[in-house]
This record gives sequence, structure tokens and C-alpha cells, in this order.
Amino acid sequence: MITKSIEWKDNKVLIIDQRKLPHKYEILSCSTPQEVIKAIKSMAVRGAPVIGVAAAYGMALAANNIKTKNKSDFINKLRKVKIELSNSRPTAVNLFWALEEIWNIVAYSNDSSIDTLREKILLKAENLAEQDIKTNHLIGKNGLKLFHDGDSILTHCNAGSLATVFYGTALGVIRAVFKKRKNIEVYINETRPVLQGARLTAWELKSDGIPATLICDSVAGFLMYQKRINKVIVGADRIAANGDIANKIGTYSISVLAKTHKIPFYVAVPTSTIDFNIKSGKDIPIEERDSLEVTHIMGKKIAPDNIQVYNPAFDITPNENITAIITEYGILEPPYDKTLTTILTKIYN
Amino acid sequence: MITKSIEWKDNKVLIIDQRKLPHKYEILSCSTPQEVIKAIKSMAVRGAPVIGVAAAYGMALAANNIKTKNKSDFINKLRKVKIELSNSRPTAVNLFWALEEIWNIVAYSNDSSIDTLREKILLKAENLAEQDIKTNHLIGKNGLKLFHDGDSILTHCNAGSLATVFYGTALGVIRAVFKKRKNIEVYINETRPVLQGARLTAWELKSDGIPATLICDSVAGFLMYQKRINKVIVGADRIAANGDIANKIGTYSISVLAKTHKIPFYVAVPTSTIDFNIKSGKDIPIEERDSLEVTHIMGKKIAPDNIQVYNPAFDITPNENITAIITEYGILEPPYDKTLTTILTKIYN
Repeated sequence: MITKSIEWKDNKVLIIDQRKLPHKYEILSCSTPQEVIKAIKSMAVRGAPVIGVAAAYGMALAANNIKTKNKSDFINKLRKVKIELSNSRPTAVNLFWALEEIWNIVAYSNDSSIDTLREKILLKAENLAEQDIKTNHLIGKNGLKLFHDGDSILTHCNAGSLATVFYGTALGVIRAVFKKRKNIEVYINETRPVLQGARLTAWELKSDGIPATLICDSVAGFLMYQKRINKVIVGADRIAANGDIANKIGTYSISVLAKTHKIPFYVAVPTSTIDFNIKSGKDIPIEERDSLEVTHIMGKKIAPDNIQVYNPAFDITPNENITAIITEYGILEPPYDKTLTTILTKIYN
Repeated sequence: MITKSIEWKDNKVLIIDQRKLPHKYEILSCSTPQEVIKAIKSMAVRGAPVIGVAAAYGMALAANNIKTKNKSDFINKLRKVKIELSNSRPTAVNLFWALEEIWNIVAYSNDSSIDTLREKILLKAENLAEQDIKTNHLIGKNGLKLFHDGDSILTHCNAGSLATVFYGTALGVIRAVFKKRKNIEVYINETRPVLQGARLTAWELKSDGIPATLICDSVAGFLMYQKRINKVIVGADRIAANGDIANKIGTYSISVLAKTHKIPFYVAVPTSTIDFNIKSGKDIPIEERDSLEVTHIMGKKIAPDNIQVYNPAFDITPNENITAIITEYGILEPPYDKTLTTILTKIYN
């Protein structure tokens, strides 16, 4: 058992294998950055914040494993690993953000020896992991004021402890609300195709004793029609400068349904999810994944042979469908192009 | 192999076992009405029109199997079976409609012997089956004018040959459109929890060579956002007098998404689906099914033990989200309380 979803131990990166949950709790031990890349690609580790930390630890592994004594050779080899890690998944920006945080150490390391650099990189990775937990607790605390006793909250995918180092973003807010208000209930979208809701969020909320009901993704609209949901909260994989978000496929549909039913739609994220280089959602790259995720479930085939499949892993929710964005620096409201910029000054102060 | 989804042969009802598709094509042979009830409850046979025909054949089986020579005893025993059949599933009205069609034979049979009654009941059941096929072809023909070359059509669940005796309602329209216009494509919602889209609709369209792409239910909204869908067509299990419909869970969400994106939302049904006794959708009983349908897929567990589940099999789509209803008597447009009444006079003339 490890208490966080990812840990550095004895020069290895230990990861809870999220493909095996909820049936098996298995720890995946990565000794090389290539193993970390494989874990990210296969979604053994998934969730925007935690894949950022995984990439940072991947760089620490690389730094340890590169055996040259020539510093520029060391940096070149490290750069190669950075590129490989940044190609592991395209949508979540936290991955690129964490790699840049690590690379800043390398870029300003003129006076450091290779060994010092190794230490500094690991220290930074450890620091990003710790920072993630603190950030999530702040997001939870900040989100608290948007929720009330008796709330019935819909969430999609898994923006929980497993998607972060610990505590979660959207589930962090739910945890904070449950601790304070008690009398809430949560509806969990199962989140096809990879079923992060059914497998991961259900497992997390059940473990915490938070009242939760699992539904198929297509049930959420009917629950809203019946006035049985009064808040929606999700995480995000990237936020454009105008407040458009990329998040797990299905998020856009929920946002439309929430808007139609006049239900607040909240997004809980660390500010590392904001990508100021991207103007709007239409510029965010959307990963398409293997059709096997759709045609097979847990290894069982559910569709005829050779059927064509469209399997985008994410979709875009435009800013006008988002009631508020909850960050570690506070709650942002529209117009997001303005409010996100105010955050920028807080991040760099 | 049978050419229809249900057939009467050698005093048995033969049914394509839809639980086994697309992997196995198996025929279920029912010798008793109880076996038909089991087939309906377990969804070996499913789809509003075909479960009506299945119930009618169930009555024919009952009539054959009741061995009394006393006519009032015969009718009493038959009435008991009718009640059992009508309790097999609650939402689709075609079941009750078909049972009433059969019961009218019994009610106006003063001069008939038991043997004649047996013959008349079977004849009526056979007639309902034939009528269903003709009706579907008319629905297809009538729907044709709403579709155009280049259309990209979303459908949900299975309103195809399998949901009827043959040809289908929504898929009947798609078949008619494909035959005439060729250049169309279809997106199929997989339709969790029972996956009728992935298993049955994908199998039907693939068999017919109609270009089709399978998607998870949560992808439909994103496709609309990308302007990659320009028509929606579904079946229905019951239509209230005001035009509200009950259909497979998820239909309501699609209707909201279609409305938001200004995409026409069509419902294709035989008029036997209209329930003039029910004023609006809120009076239609919604079946809730076993949580195992959600927590397990093809026998594989996908959720933690003892997680609470909400599993409605249907939802209500209000009339204001429906662009047109395609029937064997023509296309109905809003206001449905008026246009549905005009159909009533056609049905009884």
C-alpha cells in the first residue's frame, strides 16, 4: 500500500495501477522513464495533475539513469527523454507544465555538477508532488462556499486522489463539502469508454463513506429533468486563455444539459491546468484513442467485428457553459479572459 | 436461421436471442407463454413493436396449451396469462395494445368454439406480425422526404429489424434513405447499459452495408458541437397524447443536445405506440432494472462491490424537443395534441 497515487521510493517511481482498480490494488514500479511513459500511455496512471508529476519523476529517473560524465551529453540525453515524455499524451497541459518546471532547473544550472543537477531535479519533482496536495486542499477549501447542505452533485470521470497525487480537484471539493456539510449526495457518471467513474470515483467515494450513486452516462440528463441534481463539478485537462476547457469526453454534453436546466457547472483545477498560450478551446489538441476501448470492455467484445469507431478521449466545453472555475487562488467567474489574467499575476508573485 | 426476429413455427414461437448478438446467432424456442414472458423480461426479445407481437404469440401458445373443454374456464385461464404477459415489462405500450387486439377476438367470440377461438387468436397474432412489417415499410417510405443526400444521422439504441418483426422503425427509415440516397452516414450510440446500439444496431447496419460509426453515448454531444451530425432519428416505447415520448434512457439528453445545436430530432413509430389514455410523459411508467446491468458488462464486474446504482431503462422526451413523428400514416408535426388526434380518425377508418 502507498498512501499517495504516486511516490518516489528507493530510486523508483511507485504508481497505483489504475487499470486494475477497483478489483485489484496493485503497485506498478517504474525504474526507467520509458516505463513511466508506458504507464501514462496505457492509462495505468491518468488524470491531468498526476501525469504532470509522473512526467517530473520520469525526468528524475532519467537523470539518475544517464551515466555520462559529460554535462552537455547529459543535458542532451535528458532533453531527448523530455521530448519522449511530452509525446506520451497530448491533451492535458499539466504534463508539459511539469516538464517545463523541471527543465527550468536544467536551463539555469550552469554552475551545477551532474550530481547536483540530479539532486535538484529530484527535489523539484518531489516539490511538485507536495505542492499538488497542498493545491488540492486549497481548491477544496475555496470551493466550499459554492456548496450547501442537501446538495445533489453530479461528477464525471475521476478528478480524485487518483487523478492527482492525493485528495483530488473536483473530488477534493466534494471531500471538503462532505466534511463540513455532511448531508450531500453524489451521482457518478460511469464515464465510458474507460469507466473512470465506475471504477475509480465510485471506489474513492465509497472508501470515504460519501453517499454516492453510480449511473450510466446517458442517465445524467434524465436526473436533471427530474430535478434530482443541483450542482455539477468536474476537473479539466486544459483551460484556454478564454476559459474554454478540455476535459474527459462527455463533459461538453453535461455542460449543455446543466445550462438547459439552469444548474451551476463548476470546474475545479490547479492553475497549472491553465494554458495561456492557447486562445480558445478549438486550439486544444484532442487525443483519439484505440477503438478497442469502445469495442471491448474488460477484454470482452461488445460490438461486431470491424465496426468503425470514433473514440475521442476529450471534448471541449466552451466558457459560456461554465459557471465558475475553482482554483487554489480562489474562484474565477466570467468573463474568464479577464479573471484568468488576474490569476496570472498571483501565480508569478 | 429465421428471416424475421420472431416467427411462429410448428406450434412454437421462435425468437432470435438478442442477448447473444452480435457474437452468436441463436434461436430461442418458446413452447409456453411463461417462456415468452421470461424472454421478454430478460430482454432476449426487446423493442416495443416486437414485444407486442411476442405477447400476441404468447397468447396463441396459451390458447393451444390450455386443455379444458369448458369455454368459460378456457377464457378465465387465458385472461390469467394475459395479465402475466402484461406484467412482463411496463413502459412500451405496444405490449398492452397487442394484448388488447388479441383480447378483442376473445371478447367477441360468443359463437366460437374453443378450437375456432384458438385458430382466430393465432390468425390475429400472425396478422399483427405481418402488419408490423408493412407498417415499417410505410414508416420508411414516409420518412424518406425528411432526409437528404450527405446526411449524417445519429441513432440511439436499436429501433431496427430486431426491435420489430422485420425492417425496423428508425432503422427502417435509415434503410429506406440509404436505398434511395446512398450517400449517408450513421453514428450509433452504444447505448449503455445493455448496449443495444453496439451489439444490435451496429450488427444490423454492418450487415446491410450502411456506413456506420460506433460511439460511446457521451460522444454524441461533441459530434454535434463539431457539426458532424445533422439529423437524429430514434424509435419510441410509448407516445403520450401530447406527443411526449418514452424511449431508451439517453434519448432525452440527445433531444436537448439536438435542440441546442438546432438539429432536427425525429421519432419513427407505428401508431400502436401512441397511448391516447396518457395525457403527458410524466404519466408514463418508467421501468427501473437490475443494478447488475450497470455494475457488470458481459459478466465482467466494472464497479466496486455494493455501490448504489440508479438504472432507469427509459426516459421522457418532452414534445417541444421533437421536430416530427414519422408514422405509417404520415409525418406528424407540432402541435402534437392536435396532429395525433387526426391520426386517431385514420386508424379507425
